[in-house]
Amino acid sequence: MTKTLTRRDWLRQSGLVLGGSIVAASGALATPIKVKNYKKIRTPIRMMFNENPYGPSKIARMVMTKAFDEGSLYAHNGALVELKKILADKEGVTPDHIIIGSGSREVLNVTALHYLYNGGEVVANYPGYETLNRYAENLGAKVHRIRVMGDMSPDLAKLEQAVNSNTKLINICNPNNPTGVAIGAKLLEPFCRKMESKCLVFVDEAYNDYVMDPGYRSMNYLVKEGLNVMVTRTFSKIHALAGIRVGYGVAKPEIIRNLESKITGTVNILGLRAAMASLDDESFQKSSREKNIEAKEIVYDILNKTGRQYAKSEGNFIFFHTGKPIKEFKENMERKGIIVGRPFPPFDDWCRLSMARPNEMYKFKTAFQKTMS
Amino acid sequence: MTKTLTRRDWLRQSGLVLGGSIVAASGALATPIKVKNYKKIRTPIRMMFNENPYGPSKIARMVMTKAFDEGSLYAHNGALVELKKILADKEGVTPDHIIIGSGSREVLNVTALHYLYNGGEVVANYPGYETLNRYAENLGAKVHRIRVMGDMSPDLAKLEQAVNSNTKLINICNPNNPTGVAIGAKLLEPFCRKMESKCLVFVDEAYNDYVMDPGYRSMNYLVKEGLNVMVTRTFSKIHALAGIRVGYGVAKPEIIRNLESKITGTVNILGLRAAMASLDDESFQKSSREKNIEAKEIVYDILNKTGRQYAKSEGNFIFFHTGKPIKEFKENMERKGIIVGRPFPPFDDWCRLSMARPNEMYKFKTAFQKTMS
Repeated sequence: MTKTLTRRDWLRQSGLVLGGSIVAASGALATPIKVKNYKKIRTPIRMMFNENPYGPSKIARMVMTKAFDEGSLYAHNGALVELKKILADKEGVTPDHIIIGSGSREVLNVTALHYLYNGGEVVANYPGYETLNRYAENLGAKVHRIRVMGDMSPDLAKLEQAVNSNTKLINICNPNNPTGVAIGAKLLEPFCRKMESKCLVFVDEAYNDYVMDPGYRSMNYLVKEGLNVMVTRTFSKIHALAGIRVGYGVAKPEIIRNLESKITGTVNILGLRAAMASLDDESFQKSSREKNIEAKEIVYDILNKTGRQYAKSEGNFIFFHTGKPIKEFKENMERKGIIVGRPFPPFDDWCRLSMARPNEMYKFKTAFQKTMS
Repeated sequence: MTKTLTRRDWLRQSGLVLGGSIVAASGALATPIKVKNYKKIRTPIRMMFNENPYGPSKIARMVMTKAFDEGSLYAHNGALVELKKILADKEGVTPDHIIIGSGSREVLNVTALHYLYNGGEVVANYPGYETLNRYAENLGAKVHRIRVMGDMSPDLAKLEQAVNSNTKLINICNPNNPTGVAIGAKLLEPFCRKMESKCLVFVDEAYNDYVMDPGYRSMNYLVKEGLNVMVTRTFSKIHALAGIRVGYGVAKPEIIRNLESKITGTVNILGLRAAMASLDDESFQKSSREKNIEAKEIVYDILNKTGRQYAKSEGNFIFFHTGKPIKEFKENMERKGIIVGRPFPPFDDWCRLSMARPNEMYKFKTAFQKTMS
């Protein structure tokens, strides 16, 4: 009998629905995006964690403020169910196919936990996003890291060869972090279809929302078909909610049930409300995407003019060749007020640079030119 | 080289420090506590989840609003370290003795995970807080539930007898949920000292901040001594942040390291900031505590006048004998607009009633009298 508000009821009650349409959809609050204390909080300039420099959006902030009243309540389960429904619609599956975690990191961790606590092996694209691998290694599992090909894309043939009877999952990040390269559905789909009978094919799609390549496709439709495939997403990137901690996974209901029985955390109500609102706030997403392209063009231009090798990125970061040990390059840049990405072995003279605002990218340009000269 | 702000720097920068003292400490914003939409969000009246009906506090709301700027950043690790230091000071231990989770629920879950994934048994006071037991049972572990004594306090002698060579931990909640009874340090300390060589003695102290009994004491000093004892606390009760998800555990550094390697979630930045601010906001805590006593007195008076048996509670709830099946009583009360606690077997004709605001307790009185007549 606990009263449940639908999202629209809740937004209406909160005064966030104007004339029948949600404020974000009207575009009224979409631009310009202003963040208080922006400079203070981003000094030195943050180009190291693939954060979105434009958020949280105004709509997300408004909704979280309204949700403070729910902050003292154990009311997050209702909102969790509501967000699952919205995500299920978006992904073309049912809510039973969705697990929501405190960031996609929690979904990565609990997947490693479920599949690898009692031993087993992981086959992972390398360099890739290491969270799942590290959780697995903490449990004592073995991780086979398979180096990307020359174009920085996953070496699917070698990943396949590395799978053995102890392999519990294949870990691929697409677009890949830190290389930024996305692998097209024409290659990835047959790989998933072939391998899913051997082990879980796990595809981390954290940067999905930034992809421009028309050949890219989420593997969510393979989940819908009932395949042993899982994809993960995050609200930390295009939705700019990294510190608020919301992410999710899409997989068969039996997998989701197993993961949910082992997850340790609970997503906070402000994050759940912000995520729902942010999904509707298409103008914020569009603006973040466009500004990201603008920032990348600035960096490509610098790299082209200086003859530096780089991978064309479908994410909000660019991986490029500095020709210097990354530790040294990183320290040099930090002395100039810019933090760049950590080492990503085996590419120890490459740098992962997260896109900041275009004006900050020009500051990067100046610092980069001084460092490289 | 990432810039780290101390708590005071952060509050000053945020404009929350006035004349050298934090606003909360000045008392300026302490009363009256007003929550927007209070009635809407608490209709029907919520007396079922042991929530604090007065929060989140104004200070917590202000701090969370200021922290929105950090919401798009992976900046929570810095704040996590900062909160650990504050909690370590409060508990008389070092930061290495502290684990912070998304609610104390996450700490309970990860403790069950670490100690029971590979089998083993739990000995638990019953009825008690079941989260840890249920996580353990999901993993296939056996839980021995030892019924409380006639006065609703844990039966320490029988708990001791139930421990065997497979027992990984003893699970006690003190003050106990749902009975509200607290066991004094004179009894619990020697029990901990005796049992800690056999298994972890786990004491969930979620309601610690409401206790008035001078014989009660947190077992944190046994952790400091190096004993195999662990205590947990939450920001969901006196700090009124249940939906924001912050809690913590105190144990030996080697235990903390093991638990941290297995935790799946990450605490959100708004919760970390709110928790720090709320710890300083003593007037809010004092007010919540006093109002809770006032509400309990109203209920005791009703129960005394109607001759109903109850347990004297050190928490923010009262467990009392209705003499009717709780399912029936609960449905009756819900028809009158009040939600009371769920069944707590084996006490199937008892009700756990969470304290709401005093005026709501008078509404309970009316509904109760009609239901019982």
